[in-house]
Amino acid sequence: MNAKPEILDAKHIMLAHGNGGRFMRELIERVFAPRLANTLLDVQADAVPLPTPDGEIMFTTDGFTVQPLEFPGGDIGSLAVNGTVNDLAVSGATPLYLSLNAFIEEGLEVAQLERVVASLGRTATEAGVKIAAGDTKVVRRGEGGGLYLATTGVGVRDRGIRLGLDRIRDGDVILVSGPVGDHGIAVMLAREQFGLHGELLSDCASVLPLTQAVLAFPGLRFMRDPTRGGLAMIAHEIRRATGMGIHLDEPAIPIREAVASVCEMLGYDPLYLACEGRVVAVVAPADAPAALQAWRALPQGQSAVMIGRVTKAKRFVVMQTALGGERMLDELDDDPLPRIC
Amino acid sequence: MNAKPEILDAKHIMLAHGNGGRFMRELIERVFAPRLANTLLDVQADAVPLPTPDGEIMFTTDGFTVQPLEFPGGDIGSLAVNGTVNDLAVSGATPLYLSLNAFIEEGLEVAQLERVVASLGRTATEAGVKIAAGDTKVVRRGEGGGLYLATTGVGVRDRGIRLGLDRIRDGDVILVSGPVGDHGIAVMLAREQFGLHGELLSDCASVLPLTQAVLAFPGLRFMRDPTRGGLAMIAHEIRRATGMGIHLDEPAIPIREAVASVCEMLGYDPLYLACEGRVVAVVAPADAPAALQAWRALPQGQSAVMIGRVTKAKRFVVMQTALGGERMLDELDDDPLPRIC
Repeated sequence: MNAKPEILDAKHIMLAHGNGGRFMRELIERVFAPRLANTLLDVQADAVPLPTPDGEIMFTTDGFTVQPLEFPGGDIGSLAVNGTVNDLAVSGATPLYLSLNAFIEEGLEVAQLERVVASLGRTATEAGVKIAAGDTKVVRRGEGGGLYLATTGVGVRDRGIRLGLDRIRDGDVILVSGPVGDHGIAVMLAREQFGLHGELLSDCASVLPLTQAVLAFPGLRFMRDPTRGGLAMIAHEIRRATGMGIHLDEPAIPIREAVASVCEMLGYDPLYLACEGRVVAVVAPADAPAALQAWRALPQGQSAVMIGRVTKAKRFVVMQTALGGERMLDELDDDPLPRIC
Repeated sequence: MNAKPEILDAKHIMLAHGNGGRFMRELIERVFAPRLANTLLDVQADAVPLPTPDGEIMFTTDGFTVQPLEFPGGDIGSLAVNGTVNDLAVSGATPLYLSLNAFIEEGLEVAQLERVVASLGRTATEAGVKIAAGDTKVVRRGEGGGLYLATTGVGVRDRGIRLGLDRIRDGDVILVSGPVGDHGIAVMLAREQFGLHGELLSDCASVLPLTQAVLAFPGLRFMRDPTRGGLAMIAHEIRRATGMGIHLDEPAIPIREAVASVCEMLGYDPLYLACEGRVVAVVAPADAPAALQAWRALPQGQSAVMIGRVTKAKRFVVMQTALGGERMLDELDDDPLPRIC
């Protein structure tokens, strides 16, 4: 008889944890299942039934490759839950279920994997979603970046809700729920190669309370969370989809002191940096004050503000500076910060 | 003004293709969208609505890391579609929608990515599923294995259908829809390091016609597709879940000559090798002959056969050999063939 070592003996992930046999089962039963206990439907089944209330079923997916895996204010686990929860939330849906894929690199510390999975479970519970399906693969050392995650989300949306780029009209107002760039800079500072350390936390959080607070406004046209590519990316998306220009008011855009000073030091533009807990909303002018008020009544929306307008009078994304001048915001070509989400 | 190179200029994937900006949009618009045209709902939205007929909504997910990315009979694209389609099919559902995550390594040849995405699109069309959501991430050279995919599937199941390990009874019959081990050996032979070349094709295919052919039998207890860990893994799953033993009839198990001889040469047991287009079904004895007949009437089920029984009289997974002896099939510990799916 062979001796049968157990995963608990292993401090680091081995290829055998990915083979479909006993080690893989133990990885799932001992590392994943207990930490997802309240959020997991069934680890055994090929496919599971999803009880869903009446409404439109909404679907989205995202991959996560953030480096380092843990950073001030979050980790790849909380990011993978909130990222997909937020894509459902900004589409006007209530997130219900997630699937989870983990690509684990041989040699990853089991203790770190346990921390990330625990964070993932907590974040799912807080956001009110269940991890309803999952899969793990183990890849060889040098063929992965420690851990990559993918989550796919299912939610339900009231049949009356219609949001979209096609609903945006000339003169609509652009709101943002809080300061931009925190996530990008927090992750960057967590990378040792920059030699900088900050107190700044990622804004990684569910935006569901924010989106639900404004869903009832008939003038709500469109919402999006400014992740990869940041605020500038969303402005360009609106411009491309509508053919109208975007006028942004630079002094109005909320940016933390710490973010602004790191950006100045290293030459980044905070408008291109990822947020992971903010919402950009386009709203008819008549509803803008009440929408802002609804956001400001929430802890995560206290610094919500109007930052610009959609306008037929312009063709580009133009930013009015504090001194009254104008500068054009280019579309992003190069990657200011790779592996930020 | 900067010169603005386009993705079509690039023969290999660059990090900038993952940054959320113009290059990523071009990657999606030029490489992914056209090849998924008939199967794609919307590449722009954060989340998309899924129109679903009445029934239980079924959910599953799987990750794919096969190496090499292309092999005789399939590639990582066809595998990623069929793998998830098959998990829905064996649960008794009709697959409707997939999400797709691609983790692309910097330096991957764009032409190869285009072939894989085209295959993925064709396979989805054949299986009758739409790619309803997608995301791409680009990771640095040396932090990925060329391309990893994850797919999450949504299907619908008639409310009357109840399949599960808990429905298995003493004396139930085990059927397999075709020869085992083809996929595992085909992928292995495609790896240059073995110095072997064969004509063997992977069995990678949708099993939906097979599962739909037997769904109406009241004696159908449970179905599964023998992927990672193979037939032996399923036998152990049934044993663990039911507490009953499994009696397998070795000479009855269909194995192609080519698979058997490669296994003999390299010391593999074909019962542990992955299939990607076979079904194992557990059926009440009364329905077994008709279920077999239904499978044999299909092109992909012509060599379907009964291979064993579930029995209270045993506690292990036991195989009766051609000579009348018995040997125990251990649960898989080590990985016979990593990155097979």
